[in-house]
Amino acid sequence: MAVLHHSLDFILSSPGTILSVVSGLSVLNANNVLKKVHLSRGYEFIGIHFMFALLRVHSHGVVTIDLQCYQEDSIAEVDNLLNALEKKLKTLLNGNIKRIKRLPALIRGAEVDRYWPTSDGRLMEYDIDKVVYDEDSAYQKIQILHSKQYGNILVLNGDINLAESDLAYTKAIMGSGKENYAGKEVLILGGGDGGILAEVKQKPKMITMLESLHIDQKVIDGCKTHRKTCGHTPMDNLTVGTALILVEDCVPVLKKYAQEGRTFDYVINDLTAVPISTEPEDSMWEFLRLILDLSIKVLHPSGKYFTQGNGVNMTDALTLYEEQLGKLSCPVGFSKEVVCVPSYLELWVFYTIWKK
Amino acid sequence: MAVLHHSLDFILSSPGTILSVVSGLSVLNANNVLKKVHLSRGYEFIGIHFMFALLRVHSHGVVTIDLQCYQEDSIAEVDNLLNALEKKLKTLLNGNIKRIKRLPALIRGAEVDRYWPTSDGRLMEYDIDKVVYDEDSAYQKIQILHSKQYGNILVLNGDINLAESDLAYTKAIMGSGKENYAGKEVLILGGGDGGILAEVKQKPKMITMLESLHIDQKVIDGCKTHRKTCGHTPMDNLTVGTALILVEDCVPVLKKYAQEGRTFDYVINDLTAVPISTEPEDSMWEFLRLILDLSIKVLHPSGKYFTQGNGVNMTDALTLYEEQLGKLSCPVGFSKEVVCVPSYLELWVFYTIWKK
Repeated sequence: MAVLHHSLDFILSSPGTILSVVSGLSVLNANNVLKKVHLSRGYEFIGIHFMFALLRVHSHGVVTIDLQCYQEDSIAEVDNLLNALEKKLKTLLNGNIKRIKRLPALIRGAEVDRYWPTSDGRLMEYDIDKVVYDEDSAYQKIQILHSKQYGNILVLNGDINLAESDLAYTKAIMGSGKENYAGKEVLILGGGDGGILAEVKQKPKMITMLESLHIDQKVIDGCKTHRKTCGHTPMDNLTVGTALILVEDCVPVLKKYAQEGRTFDYVINDLTAVPISTEPEDSMWEFLRLILDLSIKVLHPSGKYFTQGNGVNMTDALTLYEEQLGKLSCPVGFSKEVVCVPSYLELWVFYTIWKK
Repeated sequence: MAVLHHSLDFILSSPGTILSVVSGLSVLNANNVLKKVHLSRGYEFIGIHFMFALLRVHSHGVVTIDLQCYQEDSIAEVDNLLNALEKKLKTLLNGNIKRIKRLPALIRGAEVDRYWPTSDGRLMEYDIDKVVYDEDSAYQKIQILHSKQYGNILVLNGDINLAESDLAYTKAIMGSGKENYAGKEVLILGGGDGGILAEVKQKPKMITMLESLHIDQKVIDGCKTHRKTCGHTPMDNLTVGTALILVEDCVPVLKKYAQEGRTFDYVINDLTAVPISTEPEDSMWEFLRLILDLSIKVLHPSGKYFTQGNGVNMTDALTLYEEQLGKLSCPVGFSKEVVCVPSYLELWVFYTIWKK
């Protein structure tokens, strides 16, 4: 049973009148609706109603109201109380209101969690109605959540990874439809959800997919069972047609390829986003640089390396990534594209990198 | 100065142990961090710290913590307190925690409002950093808000209308690139932001745009000045090239066209979304049916009528709309498409309607 947290805020045009608001509120106090208490820096009224109510008059001219009730409570009763409070405050603050804001209730402690913030930490409420898969592997927490509009969403360690609606992601990380994969050597790092394999339209010479152990067998299992995007891909077999899938950590395999002088026309890095940390010495950055350097080593001189970056607002992390590109053992050029991936609820940056 | 509302919730695996939690929390009570009070149905502890703190132990096995501080407060101090509370609760609830959730702080009473819910009432935090235009016309509240990633967003009466990033909307309401407008008679209802006019690639015989008074001159003014999407469109003149813009209520003009027997190859209704109300006798629905009936009357027998529907989760409203389509004076067929419009943060339904 979830706690529904309602809020209703008044922003006043002139904070100077705040004391008259407090004295006006004594009506609520006398009627036993709210009880005046002194707690911190403002003026607080605590509700002794059937639900928890808090009204705070902030001295700089904001009045905040919080109501916490339960999902089982009568919606009408809660709405009535909020409407009554809004009406009373409107009368009391007559002519002094700049803005009134009533937010959709926060749903707290629910069986199914609906809040998954963007990369820049903004609050987003998804229409999640079911947890389809929830497993902890040795490496990470793997969840597949069902959204009414986005279909099944893969969530790794609390980060939205990809939903069934997100063909735009797969297209972007494959070069936005401008590449011809026919007869080409393709290397995919990651891609355990099978989306890229399903989207290769032309017949390459060979696709080698390195699904690192860190994104693990349990992810492949969960996606195979619960995601339409990977329903009929070669995921079911380790080698089907032109695809070779190695469930192995990509680093030693990349090192071996580099030593053998093997090259690829396309390297698609679908492993991880650019780390959010802006400390370039962070272990996440070291891992990213290692993969990047090895990938460029196995890239054919006329080949292309595709990867995702991060949310478009993560400018510091993106700049740091671009700085790393200048420090690789082979000099590289790059371009970037901003793409709307439906379930991300934010625009996402993708990179194309090539040998200079 | 905004109020930052932090929340930290614990969902327990076994609610039965809740009383031991309450007695365990007396440590916090004794240390004067939180004061035990009895308010409503759970067990409440109110903070007497420099910021307002509320800890509630809900008898069904959820512990909710709320901290309200101000934007000017030290982020580090708030984070430390939240971390300390999380650590203490983790020890106290050891082995009994199913999930811990700390949400991004709600920003309440800020100068610039960042929360604009979806059509189905989900909470969404935009990256709005500036109010560019804020005017009340005789008809509606018109705001243009700047988003870091979506550019300037037109907001009418609190509903996100369109952002500079939303070419996907314009393409969808013009038939998703599958139509050839060359030499055609085109009628646009609404479209005051100029986006459709700017996106007509071929040269039609004539575009007639009826920008109803209800979406008014102030919208046109605001968009002309503040939105790149309409920078160089024929909006600046009432007749330029093949476009005729009538700032008139569309109903009498449509009636006149219908009487004259005038027809159009394309009618694009960019006026309003499908009403959210599920009462078909609502005045919004009446208005929609009137426009729809007149539009189909002036549609050439082989013509197409394009319009937006609503958020894909608004299934009741969409079904009701489709029922209305069966009740028009001319029988019609229809198809629909679900499109991702970046700034909407939800998938949106568009309709194509034709005479049977």
